[in-house]
Amino acid sequence: MSLSIRNQFAGTVIAVTVGEAMATVKVRLDGGQEITAAITAEAVKDLGITSGSAVKALVKATEVALATGPVENISIRNQITGTVSEVAVGPAMAAVKINVNGGGLTAAVTADGVQALGLVPGSSVVALIKSTEISLAGA
Amino acid sequence: MSLSIRNQFAGTVIAVTVGEAMATVKVRLDGGQEITAAITAEAVKDLGITSGSAVKALVKATEVALATGPVENISIRNQITGTVSEVAVGPAMAAVKINVNGGGLTAAVTADGVQALGLVPGSSVVALIKSTEISLAGA
Amino acid sequence: MSLSIRNQFAGTVIAVTVGEAMATVKVRLDGGQEITAAITAEAVKDLGITSGSAVKALVKATEVALATGPVENISIRNQITGTVSEVAVGPAMAAVKINVNGGGLTAAVTADGVQALGLVPGSSVVALIKSTEISLAGA
Repeated sequence: MSLSIRNQFAGTVIAVTVGEAMATVKVRLDGGQEITAAITAEAVKDLGITSGSAVKALVKATEVALATGPVENISIRNQITGTVSEVAVGPAMAAVKINVNGGGLTAAVTADGVQALGLVPGSSVVALIKSTEISLAGA
Repeated sequence: MSLSIRNQFAGTVIAVTVGEAMATVKVRLDGGQEITAAITAEAVKDLGITSGSAVKALVKATEVALATGPVENISIRNQITGTVSEVAVGPAMAAVKINVNGGGLTAAVTADGVQALGLVPGSSVVALIKSTEISLAGA
Repeated sequence: MSLSIRNQFAGTVIAVTVGEAMATVKVRLDGGQEITAAITAEAVKDLGITSGSAVKALVKATEVALATGPVENISIRNQITGTVSEVAVGPAMAAVKINVNGGGLTAAVTADGVQALGLVPGSSVVALIKSTEISLAGA
């Protein structure tokens, strides 16, 4: 089985907070970064996710935003630094490939966004991912 | 009101779990599948959603990921099987139309994703939709 | 049709750029802000969206991120300033209501995010919305 989801990062669960409907799961990626995923409480139970679980964090390319540096005072929990390796620009959208510690990452952003940030191969970027956009897979 | 949201599925609410901020709503689609939507607790109240409510599940094409088969051990609650009917590929993004039981579905994924999965008309796929990406409309 | 989508803003289309798979649509909201929506090229055609079209921009609460001030050098095209009017916090998630020029806005973010930003009623915030998360409805 192959997945269209471009971004997959292996890691280990370090904390789980479960509410009535939703849960937040903190994961330390093998590349060293910590990320937070907001998934349904039911998914946590079904997958048996607890501290120490080996998981993969999955993020669709359309859910990744980019900045040219770290962003402070923002609710977005997940910021992963990297270097642009490739930019494919269409009339409306662009796909930006980024080398990050522990693998690669693809962001689908507007062509306008790429132009405004002046992104070219070699640009330093920070990938921003809202917690609600991260899914988890059991290892 | 006509909507840009490509994916709309009629169904009936079978369970509602309400937390402080968020709620999860299970819906049995008319096509037979069960899906889960994570929406705000306020929306559940405003729309008067309870077991038995007739609703439409709405999903933006950019929120649909694709796999070439069922995916196990994943937090993504919603998996709908179907067959690719059409693929439009641009430099960055692609739009993939899928026939599913009970209607059609459109996924906007990266052009890379389409190539990696070798998607062409006739391909069997599973559409994956995170609960947080499903909105509901009252019937 | 009543919608669970909390955020609906009336406006007028000022530009449309269509690619093979996706299109970007610029909308001037009645509140004065300009926003960009990335929707499928097919949706633009089906809804007959052109410059001058009256539309509603729709954004799911889970797709809204918050910052305590304007964010520069970011690919996220849409930043709407406002003032927090209400915060409902659960164990995992929080719902934040914001008064903006031209109406109200709800963001569903992690409880951690609300705490990190110190959000309380009266806080000034900027709502950040990725273009791929904005849907359009014909008026």
